[in-house]
Amino acid sequence: MNSPRQSIAASGLAFLCVLGVAAAAAFPDDMAATLAVRAILERQVADWNRGDLDGFLSAYWNSSKVVFQSGGTRLDGFDAMRERYQKRYRAEGKAMGRLAFSGLDIEPLGPEAVLARGRWRLTISDGAGPGGLFTVIFRKLPEGWRIVHDHTSTE
Amino acid sequence: MNSPRQSIAASGLAFLCVLGVAAAAAFPDDMAATLAVRAILERQVADWNRGDLDGFLSAYWNSSKVVFQSGGTRLDGFDAMRERYQKRYRAEGKAMGRLAFSGLDIEPLGPEAVLARGRWRLTISDGAGPGGLFTVIFRKLPEGWRIVHDHTSTE
Repeated sequence: MNSPRQSIAASGLAFLCVLGVAAAAAFPDDMAATLAVRAILERQVADWNRGDLDGFLSAYWNSSKVVFQSGGTRLDGFDAMRERYQKRYRAEGKAMGRLAFSGLDIEPLGPEAVLARGRWRLTISDGAGPGGLFTVIFRKLPEGWRIVHDHTSTE
Repeated sequence: MNSPRQSIAASGLAFLCVLGVAAAAAFPDDMAATLAVRAILERQVADWNRGDLDGFLSAYWNSSKVVFQSGGTRLDGFDAMRERYQKRYRAEGKAMGRLAFSGLDIEPLGPEAVLARGRWRLTISDGAGPGGLFTVIFRKLPEGWRIVHDHTSTE
């Protein structure tokens, strides 16, 4: 049997180990989430600039509960969002242009949610193009990190 | 000493207790976070409609790291945000009008973060007034739940 002093020392050591493991676990999780989200946003830009709208949209949660807000319009559900993008960028006479994100800020909000914000700019063939800001919320779902909420505004 | 059967039964019971406690702990936390955020948003509307801009702003994180995005403009820090509100609504000849939120949607993103979104409408004395959508992210800070990020757009 251990002496009380030994037991206290052992408990203290166990406590420090738990703390150490917790700290080591928390930061790599944040780092992994940040890297995963950054990779998805970079892939979205690459998909867009290749004209692959479905690739771009695959970053979003394929659910009736995904929400897209822009100006005064709220769209509920992946299908409504996809339809908006198709009408706006893939209809006859429309162009997807060249997309760029800048000032990207990625902030984990807990073990399974990340806030990302930044500036977007579309350059259409004639040089002019809209731009503005976006806020996207990612959640870690069984299928991977997905955008569950998007709020985009135009300058 | 317990028989193996008793040990298995006891382990099963312990497991169910742990599950039960975890479930009971998770949902009341979400519920508490949702209620806290809803109360803050309701208080913001009441503060605004009393002309108490500082009361309204007290819902935000008083930090240089709070972010406010609107149209193509990003403001960093509480002071910059407060100045925008003061110039826009408290300067000579400006009116705060009557604020209303609708379609409020409050979604916990984990133990210490909440997403809230909805529609805002300002009614100025002559009846006209702007409106649009907002996305706000709350975090549970030592000082309480505070908005750490706001993205507001206008119709």
